[in-house]
Amino acid sequence: MVGFELVQDLVHESPSKIILFVMDGLGGLPHPKTGQTELEAAYTPNLDRLARQSQCGLIDPISPGITPGSGPAHLALFGYDPLRFLIGRGVLEALGIGMEVRDGDVAARGNFCTMDEQGNIADRRAGRVATERNAQLCRMLESISLDKVEFRVTAVKEHRFAVVFRGADLSDQLTDTDPQQNGLPPLPVRATSPGAQRTAELANEFIAQAGAILREERPANMVLLRGFSRLPHLPTMAQVYKLRSAAIAIYPMYKGLASLVGMQVVPGGTTVADEADAVAVHWGQYDFFYMHHKATDAAGEDGDFERKVKAIEEADAVIPRLLGLKPDVLMVTGDHSTPATLAGHSWHPVPFLLYSRWVRAHGAASFCESDCALGELGRFPSVQVMPLALAHALKLDKYGA
Amino acid sequence: MVGFELVQDLVHESPSKIILFVMDGLGGLPHPKTGQTELEAAYTPNLDRLARQSQCGLIDPISPGITPGSGPAHLALFGYDPLRFLIGRGVLEALGIGMEVRDGDVAARGNFCTMDEQGNIADRRAGRVATERNAQLCRMLESISLDKVEFRVTAVKEHRFAVVFRGADLSDQLTDTDPQQNGLPPLPVRATSPGAQRTAELANEFIAQAGAILREERPANMVLLRGFSRLPHLPTMAQVYKLRSAAIAIYPMYKGLASLVGMQVVPGGTTVADEADAVAVHWGQYDFFYMHHKATDAAGEDGDFERKVKAIEEADAVIPRLLGLKPDVLMVTGDHSTPATLAGHSWHPVPFLLYSRWVRAHGAASFCESDCALGELGRFPSVQVMPLALAHALKLDKYGA
Repeated sequence: MVGFELVQDLVHESPSKIILFVMDGLGGLPHPKTGQTELEAAYTPNLDRLARQSQCGLIDPISPGITPGSGPAHLALFGYDPLRFLIGRGVLEALGIGMEVRDGDVAARGNFCTMDEQGNIADRRAGRVATERNAQLCRMLESISLDKVEFRVTAVKEHRFAVVFRGADLSDQLTDTDPQQNGLPPLPVRATSPGAQRTAELANEFIAQAGAILREERPANMVLLRGFSRLPHLPTMAQVYKLRSAAIAIYPMYKGLASLVGMQVVPGGTTVADEADAVAVHWGQYDFFYMHHKATDAAGEDGDFERKVKAIEEADAVIPRLLGLKPDVLMVTGDHSTPATLAGHSWHPVPFLLYSRWVRAHGAASFCESDCALGELGRFPSVQVMPLALAHALKLDKYGA
Repeated sequence: MVGFELVQDLVHESPSKIILFVMDGLGGLPHPKTGQTELEAAYTPNLDRLARQSQCGLIDPISPGITPGSGPAHLALFGYDPLRFLIGRGVLEALGIGMEVRDGDVAARGNFCTMDEQGNIADRRAGRVATERNAQLCRMLESISLDKVEFRVTAVKEHRFAVVFRGADLSDQLTDTDPQQNGLPPLPVRATSPGAQRTAELANEFIAQAGAILREERPANMVLLRGFSRLPHLPTMAQVYKLRSAAIAIYPMYKGLASLVGMQVVPGGTTVADEADAVAVHWGQYDFFYMHHKATDAAGEDGDFERKVKAIEEADAVIPRLLGLKPDVLMVTGDHSTPATLAGHSWHPVPFLLYSRWVRAHGAASFCESDCALGELGRFPSVQVMPLALAHALKLDKYGA
């Protein structure tokens, strides 16, 4: 992948500083009544002024038409080809709730489910049990005992939980037990490579004991496991970009994603204003700051157009604080789109803005999808964001003589 | 190639419906007198209104600067990488005139040519003999007799014909006999793989007998064969996209191309209005409708600017009929450009419009090259058209967690 190895060859350390401000799920769709997207509807005087001094464009997280999850969308923004570097579902689920996943651990995503008397799955989601009940059930599972393997089980939301196994020689080459359909029996965990046989037996033992413990419970009388995975081995931002990088995020998943690429996770407080303060506090210690704003995506996922507008306006308010630090490069964008009208992630390209002394600013009137579409950067893949940032921070040498 | 295997992994069946309306050779160049392209000169109130409600862009069939033939241009629109999936010249020529080509058949393109008394080619095109004369000559060749192999010979246009061989164990691993230059003798057909020896002998026997039959004719006293090829094995639209797809076309080549990717060919009548009617008649039976309008390209190829303008206006008139079906996605574009001023296919990117409930429409004033260049979709390869269509029809799952 050109953008990666090439950049790795050309990059040099320098004192210049880069901020990547990610508003999660930033891109939107027009409100049926006004025809304006969330970003167009928001009052964003700071971002609009910044856009007029910046290079703008639209980014595709994966490729046109593809809706990404948070994992691949963030890897792409960090410059890691999301089709080459994969993060397993189990690992992502565990990171998302702040569970520790160490090298060698195997993580899986779990569902509590309902079994009927014939041994078939009556409901793969156990009626979407309440999260509080889920937490009680997870505590019950702690009495499971496995030979020479420790594990942690933690509730996520409703019927979902995460489990992390820790021990010697564990493998993630395992099949799912969830048949993805009601009315069928759960599948046994099977090893897909010879070295995974023992881990498969351990996982099946975990499930058998879970079934015994939950036998009298209703509706959650069994568990399904899927997405067995280990920590991916990603080269770090230090190795690839020679950057000392810091992550400022509030939600565990984004701290986890950042730590996967070797960023130092810095306490981010509880609001986007706190996050901007954290950037300022640590300004001297790092060259690269990834700052993550979750509220935009959360509102979009809930289909709450107005709340997403407000979340954008909160982000707008911290822009002067960030500019006051005099970053060599300030980028504002999203990892993907989460239009409130779709109430979920989408494939739409994401507004992108790069502010630096070394841009050709073409006078975008404001920071929004339609003005970014006319920006000089055009439409480009998210994996090209890091090379652009490093270039504008004058950290990249010339290629060839 | 990302757009293909990835989409195959993510796609699911759904009741949503997609129309891909291809005006062949749509893209144009400015008329020297008016400075307007064919599309700009055409009166297209329906397409212009549609463009104002759509996402627009420009597509490159292969890559910038590359002029495609109809085969690769259409494969790209259907999402099949045209550099990976190749359709042989012989097969395309045969499909283009509606000859049946079955699995195992070998097709070749033929030229009638003129030989001089020294056995060299005096004219590779036999003075571009009249098509009627060509048909007579083809009937004469029917008396050729080959051992255990049947064949059909059919006139194409002027000196061009197509031949399809049918029999057991035929191979297309054969060299051309056309030396591509006058003044040289025809080359023998040679096998390029061991299993092709017998087919090479059969082809040479065909040529020898043709030479004997045509010996006294002038100017067409010999044949040249090239582009030996078999049907390519393409995964079907059903396999790749889980789509039940229909092709509505008038010309044989486009029906043939569509059938190569497993589309059901539906009778299209004789006009573009008939084609729109055919879409309506079969609306309940399919998820995907490829509708092909040939007249734009034919006029462009003839260098007839005005006729191409009229062909575009005819297409404009059927837009309300298509919209009346309430497709989830309606795309209007071309397979490639055929500017009347060039009187042939060209490399210029092609206007593209995607109408769906889930677009950010940026108020393109009209459907033309210059407004599409400013559209949010930007400039992108034709192979990304299908992923975009499927995304907007909500048929694609999320990539990664």
